[in-house]
Amino acid sequence: MPDKKLAIIATKGSLDWGYPPFILASTAAALGYQVQVFFTFYGLQLLRKKLDLKVTSLGNPGMPMPMPMPVMLQALPGMQSMMTMMMKKKMKAKGVAELEELREMCAEAEVRMIACQMTVDLFDMDPASFVDGIEFGGAATFFEFAGEADVSLFI
Amino acid sequence: MPDKKLAIIATKGSLDWGYPPFILASTAAALGYQVQVFFTFYGLQLLRKKLDLKVTSLGNPGMPMPMPMPVMLQALPGMQSMMTMMMKKKMKAKGVAELEELREMCAEAEVRMIACQMTVDLFDMDPASFVDGIEFGGAATFFEFAGEADVSLFI
Amino acid sequence: MPDKKLAIIATKGSLDWGYPPFILASTAAALGYQVQVFFTFYGLQLLRKKLDLKVTSLGNPGMPMPMPMPVMLQALPGMQSMMTMMMKKKMKAKGVAELEELREMCAEAEVRMIACQMTVDLFDMDPASFVDGIEFGGAATFFEFAGEADVSLFI
Repeated sequence: MPDKKLAIIATKGSLDWGYPPFILASTAAALGYQVQVFFTFYGLQLLRKKLDLKVTSLGNPGMPMPMPMPVMLQALPGMQSMMTMMMKKKMKAKGVAELEELREMCAEAEVRMIACQMTVDLFDMDPASFVDGIEFGGAATFFEFAGEADVSLFI
Repeated sequence: MPDKKLAIIATKGSLDWGYPPFILASTAAALGYQVQVFFTFYGLQLLRKKLDLKVTSLGNPGMPMPMPMPVMLQALPGMQSMMTMMMKKKMKAKGVAELEELREMCAEAEVRMIACQMTVDLFDMDPASFVDGIEFGGAATFFEFAGEADVSLFI
Repeated sequence: MPDKKLAIIATKGSLDWGYPPFILASTAAALGYQVQVFFTFYGLQLLRKKLDLKVTSLGNPGMPMPMPMPVMLQALPGMQSMMTMMMKKKMKAKGVAELEELREMCAEAEVRMIACQMTVDLFDMDPASFVDGIEFGGAATFFEFAGEADVSLFI
């Protein structure tokens, strides 16, 4: 598979939805793909040095729950933190790498990571809070690469 | 349109978001596409023999509601089941096929369905609970096909 | 970049998720792409003459909040409207165009906008409530264009 290209737009910033971009990017890179991930909207959270992502079952009835739980209960104070802790624990027990590790693997595999400048400005984010080695750009930067890519995914 | 290919990643497991993968897959197959759907994360729910999917308006202010309803009310016990019942009823009245039928159409049209082994392990899912005829694989399996596909969609 | 093509499926109908389709479509059009957006499911809301879209942090722990707020509070009456107002105000202050303007830019750049007939029927939507100049079609219409596109995105 010589010189294939994968373009990803990562737009979500929760613990669960943080996985697909990094898993797909690192897998493709391992397969020899040239990979570029454009982080925009809530996806910018995935670039912070210190990740503090949460997961919630609210609005996601597809999430497997250890036990059935009324929606109202899922909205109670502390519940989001508890679900986040449980998912992290489960992932660790199952040997799933943490997001930081997957991101590091991507960086080592020379996955290009681009932060959306417009979103950074909109949410007054501090570029110094992001990991090193990333670039900044706009939607045009995305298309420069995606226009030539074999696979493009909006996550 | 000879020998086109469509690669889908299906990641959501609610009643509403279960439709796009099966509608797009079956339509493309009918148009002569070779289609592969990789079910991962919450999307694994779509492969269960007995589907028990729900829909909620929580976190989705874009959902058309029969009448305006405060968010708090939408979180009340029983509300998710009621919304699920109402959507199913509406779809039936409008002649929209049930998810099981669409899935069956996909199987008959030789859409290849692949369950993400990592997610199965992570959520301790029972492979015997899935429909027959599916395969198991990983992200690399997805790229094998997607790398050659004309259209790739992350749903 | 001569004669590149971008195919988008726009499926979400909230204020925040209304931006990506129009930003990506207008940027690509400005770069010389031929662009087609297929509006389906909740994405149909984006075609209404008078947009009345909301945003919520419920179910989206990745949203940057001006201050931490328990999930339960986010579900209180009036909270969704307040968050919508705050996001609109912030976007205006930062010089981000309104959705209506971006949509107008797309129309001027000859982005083809197609409303999913099945969704219109399902939700009993009034075609007269949509902006002028759009077309109606189905999933097959989408593939007609996407099958030849350089970039396809499911948003």
